[in-house]
Amino acid sequence: MTLRGNVTIDVGWGDCDPAEIVFYPNYFKWFDVGTHRLFDAAGLSFVTLREQYGIIGVPLLNAEASFSRPSRYGERIEIESWIERWERKTFRVAHRVHNAGEIAVEGTELRAWVAPHPDDAGRMRAVEIPAAIKAAFTREGP
Amino acid sequence: MTLRGNVTIDVGWGDCDPAEIVFYPNYFKWFDVGTHRLFDAAGLSFVTLREQYGIIGVPLLNAEASFSRPSRYGERIEIESWIERWERKTFRVAHRVHNAGEIAVEGTELRAWVAPHPDDAGRMRAVEIPAAIKAAFTREGP
Amino acid sequence: MTLRGNVTIDVGWGDCDPAEIVFYPNYFKWFDVGTHRLFDAAGLSFVTLREQYGIIGVPLLNAEASFSRPSRYGERIEIESWIERWERKTFRVAHRVHNAGEIAVEGTELRAWVAPHPDDAGRMRAVEIPAAIKAAFTREGP
Amino acid sequence: MTLRGNVTIDVGWGDCDPAEIVFYPNYFKWFDVGTHRLFDAAGLSFVTLREQYGIIGVPLLNAEASFSRPSRYGERIEIESWIERWERKTFRVAHRVHNAGEIAVEGTELRAWVAPHPDDAGRMRAVEIPAAIKAAFTREGP
Repeated sequence: MTLRGNVTIDVGWGDCDPAEIVFYPNYFKWFDVGTHRLFDAAGLSFVTLREQYGIIGVPLLNAEASFSRPSRYGERIEIESWIERWERKTFRVAHRVHNAGEIAVEGTELRAWVAPHPDDAGRMRAVEIPAAIKAAFTREGP
Repeated sequence: MTLRGNVTIDVGWGDCDPAEIVFYPNYFKWFDVGTHRLFDAAGLSFVTLREQYGIIGVPLLNAEASFSRPSRYGERIEIESWIERWERKTFRVAHRVHNAGEIAVEGTELRAWVAPHPDDAGRMRAVEIPAAIKAAFTREGP
Repeated sequence: MTLRGNVTIDVGWGDCDPAEIVFYPNYFKWFDVGTHRLFDAAGLSFVTLREQYGIIGVPLLNAEASFSRPSRYGERIEIESWIERWERKTFRVAHRVHNAGEIAVEGTELRAWVAPHPDDAGRMRAVEIPAAIKAAFTREGP
Repeated sequence: MTLRGNVTIDVGWGDCDPAEIVFYPNYFKWFDVGTHRLFDAAGLSFVTLREQYGIIGVPLLNAEASFSRPSRYGERIEIESWIERWERKTFRVAHRVHNAGEIAVEGTELRAWVAPHPDDAGRMRAVEIPAAIKAAFTREGP
């Protein structure tokens, strides 16, 4: 069973634009929060990643979202995030935004597992994701 | 020849995250600026769209970006935006972000041409894009 | 006893800048959330203000903050907001940001009670705040 | 004569809230840009500060703004920034936002000159500002 991260957002006044709906880049900001929350749920804070796994971060290769229903000031939305697919050096996080029982937004983030370059600490490169990391996102299901 | 919009961004301190690179949702914020700049270049401000064409806005159906090179505080990036494809009620805007002669980010926004619903002004619906609008984004070639 | 609004923020990666601390304008964004939360606690959503009191909004005349301790990614901060002073057409909201038992930020927002101008709906002007509004922010004390 | 930094902002759609005016925390984001631009004008990029002066940054002690006129989507505003006062370890930056010949916002930032703590690189402390720095912000006047 795949671990899920959950974020609740009360849509703020400043999150909305003059059309009185959420300004769309904010959904990506919330996707990023969802990914961090998911790693926290797996017991893998970004501090742990750095210190135990020598990882600089998990930068984006691609991000994508489809918007099916606008959300407005004062509405409460719930973001559900999980890892949809693991590759050798990358992984894809799926995000689903719920508003009042409907799916409002769906999207994905393709992220790389990145360490400092061995020849030049100022550069970075994608490296293989340890099996222990992948396992941390799987929970024994019922 | 397709009209192009151009935006120059000097990457700010607050645009970057603790990894010292642009926090990725900001690229979508700049894509949005690029789309508005492109409409301005076509002589179609959003005020004109509302007043002359009865359009509420051009909300997003989908947005997508691929990141090939990080950008950092103090770097100047250039965003080039153009309409890649017209459909009957939607259009796709392409964006290309240049940094120091390289392509840093490429993405698209799929947007709908939206008017108030005839039966309920509080709702909205996609309507057909007038030919005059499409023509405004085409310039006589070289 | 003065009503208080409370907001809990888990400081996000994208809320921080390359110095690895909260980029300071975000505190003002959270002050704004605190003010809205306080109005909600008083049973006065911004929708109610518009519909029942004919108010356009409560725009800022002044905002101010003092920063005594930085906050970082992954820390949980609590924002406490209350109305510190009522004037005839304006009011001052105080905000206090707590982090791990310490005060991290303190600030105020001076806001006006604003209605459409009677001679020109496109303009606005500050008007007298009804006594019922002021009363809604006072709770019978213990 | 005091050196001035200048920033031009074309107010974006996403900078505005449902009241169709700039969401006020954005002005502080632009103040921060103004301060960086001012340091650039003095030939002191933040990279220079770090590398030549051993400074971590110039974090905020206080920020304040007064709003006299709202700005809207599509308007061009100009931000003028200068150092209003030097203290031993702190300095105050003044910012003035112009819109169509009127002053729209005025504010200040009180910032500290901060280096790593000699006993603990993880902490920081304000240190004395070198005379050469102060001199860099003064230009021989006409």
